[in-house]
Amino acid sequence: MAILDVTQRGAVTHLTMNAPERLNALSDEMLAALQETLDDLAEDKSTRVITLSGTGKAFCAGHDLRQMTAMRQSEDGGAAAFKDLFDRCARVMARVQSMPQPVIAQVHGIATAAGCQLVATCDMAVAADGTKFGVNGVNIGLFCSTPMVALSRNIPRKQAFEMLTTGEFISAKRARDLGLVNRVVPEPALADETAKLADLVASKLGAAVKIGKEAFYHQIAMNTADAYAYTGDVMVQNMLRDDTREGIDAFLEKRAPDWDQ
Amino acid sequence: MAILDVTQRGAVTHLTMNAPERLNALSDEMLAALQETLDDLAEDKSTRVITLSGTGKAFCAGHDLRQMTAMRQSEDGGAAAFKDLFDRCARVMARVQSMPQPVIAQVHGIATAAGCQLVATCDMAVAADGTKFGVNGVNIGLFCSTPMVALSRNIPRKQAFEMLTTGEFISAKRARDLGLVNRVVPEPALADETAKLADLVASKLGAAVKIGKEAFYHQIAMNTADAYAYTGDVMVQNMLRDDTREGIDAFLEKRAPDWDQ
Amino acid sequence: MAILDVTQRGAVTHLTMNAPERLNALSDEMLAALQETLDDLAEDKSTRVITLSGTGKAFCAGHDLRQMTAMRQSEDGGAAAFKDLFDRCARVMARVQSMPQPVIAQVHGIATAAGCQLVATCDMAVAADGTKFGVNGVNIGLFCSTPMVALSRNIPRKQAFEMLTTGEFISAKRARDLGLVNRVVPEPALADETAKLADLVASKLGAAVKIGKEAFYHQIAMNTADAYAYTGDVMVQNMLRDDTREGIDAFLEKRAPDWDQ
Repeated sequence: MAILDVTQRGAVTHLTMNAPERLNALSDEMLAALQETLDDLAEDKSTRVITLSGTGKAFCAGHDLRQMTAMRQSEDGGAAAFKDLFDRCARVMARVQSMPQPVIAQVHGIATAAGCQLVATCDMAVAADGTKFGVNGVNIGLFCSTPMVALSRNIPRKQAFEMLTTGEFISAKRARDLGLVNRVVPEPALADETAKLADLVASKLGAAVKIGKEAFYHQIAMNTADAYAYTGDVMVQNMLRDDTREGIDAFLEKRAPDWDQ
Repeated sequence: MAILDVTQRGAVTHLTMNAPERLNALSDEMLAALQETLDDLAEDKSTRVITLSGTGKAFCAGHDLRQMTAMRQSEDGGAAAFKDLFDRCARVMARVQSMPQPVIAQVHGIATAAGCQLVATCDMAVAADGTKFGVNGVNIGLFCSTPMVALSRNIPRKQAFEMLTTGEFISAKRARDLGLVNRVVPEPALADETAKLADLVASKLGAAVKIGKEAFYHQIAMNTADAYAYTGDVMVQNMLRDDTREGIDAFLEKRAPDWDQ
Repeated sequence: MAILDVTQRGAVTHLTMNAPERLNALSDEMLAALQETLDDLAEDKSTRVITLSGTGKAFCAGHDLRQMTAMRQSEDGGAAAFKDLFDRCARVMARVQSMPQPVIAQVHGIATAAGCQLVATCDMAVAADGTKFGVNGVNIGLFCSTPMVALSRNIPRKQAFEMLTTGEFISAKRARDLGLVNRVVPEPALADETAKLADLVASKLGAAVKIGKEAFYHQIAMNTADAYAYTGDVMVQNMLRDDTREGIDAFLEKRAPDWDQ
């Protein structure tokens, strides 16, 4: 099994982070594998939904501190290497949201620091009961400033601040209440429930989901007036598609749509 | 009863969408009636709060798909007509928020697609237990890109994404937990509870509520420093009003304010 | 006891608003004391966390209406004085968020109008069961437009609108559900629980918390791409600190960090 295992089941492609001895840390190798695999999947017309899990005891425990410490050997004390690392990590996060397919995190064990950031970055997340979420870099003197970008766009401000400055974990249930995950299920049901959610989304017209996901992240950064002008145009383009016409016709004629996908 | 029924009770004007056979769809006629009525009410000094409900089985089921399908007959396949439709719809939504009076949705049955957008757009919403909320255009291949603008400014990001890509309904209770509605009451009490909330707001100084509502939507789009500079000026203007002076004097003298409104 | 009492316990400095006969209103004197004390504490290397409470029946009941009414005597009806007051108040609020140390509100009794704004502005808040939160200026004809800036950046939009236009109080539990406070505890435990949270944050590396707090409020106003570019640089600077290096080394060597702070 590679460091990032890829399996396809129907229109759903499942990625498994597979470095359990490092708690699936976002090492140079893991980041490279995620970037390359996502870039490839972005072009894969047969994939309509992506799910992402980790093997072993954790979903993902953040950056690889041993690799980072090794970077300190260079003449600049690691400055250039650290910058490059955070750039590569931010590119992977941006790639998740710029994928044409929804990406669903399937989370168990622990999701900390950049691992919690990855959950916050995915479009949706299903968590096992008992999962612990934290942005606890502050415990070792390294504030989770990049994870904070994703986290503070998922949950309310004071609750994000508390997690960041106390380093405390929150439970899966609390994560759901705050908005960080969509669904919480018993751990034995985690893979099935994530697959069910993925299948549900994959059963929709992929072209419409793609249009919508792209518009989602664009409009959310705009003021309301600009967002309406932009999404109005998006709706027009969506309406003009043949498969959308078929979907609406089928609905009005009370039959199933004949979508070739 | 017209397609949009208007009744006044004291300082509260109640609008009833009345096309139950179309589940109060936002047809050309409904949009025109909403725009015209709201434009008129904006000038009506005797109205301090507006409530909005629908007759029949649904609050509102979104756009009128038959009318939209008919638009496909034109030479451009409907492109110009669709664009015009979404522009008109966005104007109605903007008008709701630019009204000097708060607008409260009184929601029952179902509120889907642009109907859910209308709930999200209103300043407040009271829902009957059992109401179902959805942005389920994805089910027919037409992603709810414009409803998403209002929805994603009401509820957390991941939960909005889930509703948009699964097409699933959420309950009234879940809608309240997420922030989409303010209060959930048993259906037989819906009209009374909405009227009670409307009366409470209408009992305040209308000029102050008007000042505040306008400032609410302006400041929320600004960075914090600009928002304070702007609302500081708003507070000064509010303080300089004679009726506000009377309100504060009455409070300090422990008597009821003598407001002529 | 001065109008703003200052006591230090270890790395935590506790401020007590002490004008119980005025419900700790943000009078000219209180605003001046807060500004001066916070300015001083910003330079105090021995303080790593600040807590803020009020004596008497209320945490803080907002502006001092008697002082504001007296300002009406000037030729301009008070316009310049009001503007100056709201400017000074906004400066205190901005100072709370620009402090290098986290500021935790310890809230009991009532927190209304600018008092509720102060809670919303603090980085975190612990509330006693039974505390009532409101932005009820609308009751006297003075809409809480400046408190709204902080409130609407803490809780969902419709719930903020409801509080602002109804003038109704919400409970501590509801405040926690909405995001306005972090923790709710029985009143007899309030001081202890706030101190515990403060001590927890104070036990972290102060330099990292300072870096993180500053980055928190900067990045939250940016679009996601800019926020990642900015926080990536912040992470690099954090990594290059000697004390952070010690924190990470200690973690990898499974020992406690040797931080001299």
